Amino acid sequence: MKIAAVQLNYIVADFDYNFTQISQAIKTHQEADLIVFSELCIIGYYPYDLLTYPEIIEKQHEIVERIKALSAELNTAVVIGVATPIPGLKKFYNSALVIAHGAVVYTYHKQLIPGYGVFDETRHFISGENAQLSFVLKGKKLAILICEDIWYNNHQGYLKNPVDGLPDSLDALIVLNASPSMLGKFQQRLDIVSRIAKQIQAPIIYSSQVGGYDELVYDGASFVCNTEGALIALAQSFKEGSLSSDLNNLSETMISPPYENKPQELILQQLICGLRDYVHKCGFRGAVVGSSGGIDSALTLAIATLSLGKCNVKAITMPSIYSSKGSIDDSVVLCQNLGIELFTRDINDEFLLTCENFTKAFGREPKKLTQENMQARIRGRIVMEYANDSGLLMLTTGNKSELAVGYATLYGDMCGALNCIGDLYKNDVYALSNYINEKYGELIPQSIIDKAPSAELAEGQKDADSLPDYFYLDAMLKLYLERDLLAESEIKGLQTIVDQVEVSEQKRIYRMVELAEFKRKQAPQILFIQRRPFGIGRRMPTTARFNK
Amino acid sequence: MKIAAVQLNYIVADFDYNFTQISQAIKTHQEADLIVFSELCIIGYYPYDLLTYPEIIEKQHEIVERIKALSAELNTAVVIGVATPIPGLKKFYNSALVIAHGAVVYTYHKQLIPGYGVFDETRHFISGENAQLSFVLKGKKLAILICEDIWYNNHQGYLKNPVDGLPDSLDALIVLNASPSMLGKFQQRLDIVSRIAKQIQAPIIYSSQVGGYDELVYDGASFVCNTEGALIALAQSFKEGSLSSDLNNLSETMISPPYENKPQELILQQLICGLRDYVHKCGFRGAVVGSSGGIDSALTLAIATLSLGKCNVKAITMPSIYSSKGSIDDSVVLCQNLGIELFTRDINDEFLLTCENFTKAFGREPKKLTQENMQARIRGRIVMEYANDSGLLMLTTGNKSELAVGYATLYGDMCGALNCIGDLYKNDVYALSNYINEKYGELIPQSIIDKAPSAELAEGQKDADSLPDYFYLDAMLKLYLERDLLAESEIKGLQTIVDQVEVSEQKRIYRMVELAEFKRKQAPQILFIQRRPFGIGRRMPTTARFNK
Repeated sequence: MKIAAVQLNYIVADFDYNFTQISQAIKTHQEADLIVFSELCIIGYYPYDLLTYPEIIEKQHEIVERIKALSAELNTAVVIGVATPIPGLKKFYNSALVIAHGAVVYTYHKQLIPGYGVFDETRHFISGENAQLSFVLKGKKLAILICEDIWYNNHQGYLKNPVDGLPDSLDALIVLNASPSMLGKFQQRLDIVSRIAKQIQAPIIYSSQVGGYDELVYDGASFVCNTEGALIALAQSFKEGSLSSDLNNLSETMISPPYENKPQELILQQLICGLRDYVHKCGFRGAVVGSSGGIDSALTLAIATLSLGKCNVKAITMPSIYSSKGSIDDSVVLCQNLGIELFTRDINDEFLLTCENFTKAFGREPKKLTQENMQARIRGRIVMEYANDSGLLMLTTGNKSELAVGYATLYGDMCGALNCIGDLYKNDVYALSNYINEKYGELIPQSIIDKAPSAELAEGQKDADSLPDYFYLDAMLKLYLERDLLAESEIKGLQTIVDQVEVSEQKRIYRMVELAEFKRKQAPQILFIQRRPFGIGRRMPTTARFNK
Repeated sequence: MKIAAVQLNYIVADFDYNFTQISQAIKTHQEADLIVFSELCIIGYYPYDLLTYPEIIEKQHEIVERIKALSAELNTAVVIGVATPIPGLKKFYNSALVIAHGAVVYTYHKQLIPGYGVFDETRHFISGENAQLSFVLKGKKLAILICEDIWYNNHQGYLKNPVDGLPDSLDALIVLNASPSMLGKFQQRLDIVSRIAKQIQAPIIYSSQVGGYDELVYDGASFVCNTEGALIALAQSFKEGSLSSDLNNLSETMISPPYENKPQELILQQLICGLRDYVHKCGFRGAVVGSSGGIDSALTLAIATLSLGKCNVKAITMPSIYSSKGSIDDSVVLCQNLGIELFTRDINDEFLLTCENFTKAFGREPKKLTQENMQARIRGRIVMEYANDSGLLMLTTGNKSELAVGYATLYGDMCGALNCIGDLYKNDVYALSNYINEKYGELIPQSIIDKAPSAELAEGQKDADSLPDYFYLDAMLKLYLERDLLAESEIKGLQTIVDQVEVSEQKRIYRMVELAEFKRKQAPQILFIQRRPFGIGRRMPTTARFNK
């Protein structure tokens, strides 16, 4: 029995587009006995409250009918993911349909519904009960699980393990997924699938979607494990594609997990894919970034250029009296290296004028911090003006450490549609920048990497004046923001670093994190890379008083 | 048996504060046999992902111990709401503890866990199994349910009804709540409780929390229904307080629901309460609003003044060449009426300078729409400057109709920490403004109410140039945004209006709604008033293509 797993880059709620992609894939793989798509593939994962619109379900139904019609002409069965309305309830089952010869021959409802981390399925779906947990196709006994169903052991949020309920003597298990990529995720998946394959003594076909969907990027990387739990087939990461395997001939081969020992390459490819899809799916062709001469905007520009192409990325340098000559020169060299256009727009006259007008209107001079915010906001506005005027998206450039402690100006440097580096701590920003330079030559000038971080909003200002060294800060933040998700060994390592910081300083930092919640509430969407991104990954009240 | 229901205004995660309030209330009501607090009262509802911090649960445990110690000295039992960790799981039960004579004598775990609308409990809690569904106190057989447990019939998201599982011959049912207020909510609650009281043939004590918690405002309005389902005791709305009742003497009385037939008064009181608590819980004393001379900022200023007091509210008028003389004069009269300080800060020189600098830097004049955005953003920045410099919160002023179609500038008039009127359609804004004038005299100048809505960002610009009349627009939006939550009769009424609009125009509007999602992703938090507020009430993908 030949099985093809197909990973496509869907557009949520664009049914015609999605159907075109699916039907083409079916035709391409019509020699397979079974073609497996991914979770909620007709709608695209994840539709959120679009599911409250009956039109979504009607449209999905139409597409299912069209796939049934298509299958009637072929000798291949198709597995697709759909949202199944439940009569009398406002919730759905997250289901897989097996379609063959023009009819649905088996339906499976997902049992574990994730409502934690970046997942919101409990908002729309309930756990399915399944009378039948396998089906027979061309003499083979097959079972289906959907995504979270195989993660029982990893999340400690469920009372039963669907894997334990699987029937005996399966010829294969098929798993439909929409599993967002993050650092280490593929290995996690592979470990789980490998363990289950050995447990149930059957090969597993793991099929996922691919591409950027708001904050989440799906790597695809569909794969097959044999009965011994060995990886024997693997599709590409961050690209549409497919893999084919023959259940009658699953020899053990040596395939490495994608990006094995190359975390920086994974991060880079994920950001390139996530940014490109965000920009294109929103109907834009390119992006503009304010170039401060610092590492964050430099890295953002490098990613944008790799993602969208030189012609579609613009940079603006906006010097003030507080900008060092080095910063402006560095922006120039950076943009030369990247081959992108750099505009210069001095903000001094606007800054002086607004200070003067402030004094006139309010009868006092603006405070030092107000003046700093003014500069950041004038710059934010300038980049937005250019973005609006040119039909480009503005990208924001705040790293995770900054966003954590609120070292950023709302409506200033926090402006932008998307944040590519907001799930990278400051030291992760350096690591990725160095990696890009190693891979592509010195795209990011070494002087940008070497200089002491500064917002350059006041004379001689350095981050280190008000924040601990990032070596300590990042450790503190990681421990504070992710402790419950870290391994014991990681906690120990971080704790050793954090213990070198005064307890009062630790408290000050943690207080800053909670006080900055109001800024993060209005921050642009952040591409998810690590364990717990701000935004969809960490949902907090603003009016609470934890550490405040 | 005397029962007191106590409604307090908690601060989420401020355990010392919450304990002080609770212990004082216990002492005040120590003559009661049972004192009932509200859902999750030790932590405050809703803590969101603060629940991932073990410190939260440790602190809660400490407070429970202190309440136990306190109860040991008294002859009264206490019902409190707590999050109960579940060994081996990362989720909790949402529980009620009955504490008497220094010990927990009964524990109930909430059965229906809401994860829809503005609720996120499925992210943190799982449905409880209860071996025992009643307890006996001083000879009375009592049962407990928690909030959503009684809403089975209203949400169509659950497979069983906890009310049907209640034991027979109860002497009373106690319901702990954190039920956010919205238009019509009290009557809904009363209908449900009244029906259940008759069904189970027992009186019901309904206790809730009060106050503003981010977007949600809890009205308190704790009440008691007798066995016949009649409302016989009622605490105040939007104020801390309590009510006492004697199970042995529950006579039928005539009490009206709060704000019965006074929806505008409910909205007003809710906004006053929600704004005040947001500002104070965030550690601020007052607010500043950009006063355009239009109805939205006028209403926001009126609410802010009623909520925070004249001395704590500032307004800034920021005329440009496109501002009508009337708009400036109207701002002056408005602020005189409200008794608040109005600053004037002309934006012309800054606007002209930025246009000039744009042309210099980018080699072309900014487009008309870019120029409009510039003005809005200069104004947003000016108000933020004053807010930062004076330690005030900036309030934004976008109504729901504007936010729906994206008729607002991100980082411009969308700046601000909180939006008081963002869950009011344009016509609701007029209704509330008229109501305020009826109640307090002409606070909002009639000329502001009468003038045609205009952003005044271009010569002679009127909302009506690019949007349908708000009579049609609001009907279209309500139908589009809330259809699945409306009664058939409401749908019919709205449909009659919408049918008068060309289908292509309807489509254009619905497309605008989805295209503006990226703006709403960065919009300030909105006080929830009606069925489905933007933000926490409607969660949508940005990269989808629904109606686009």
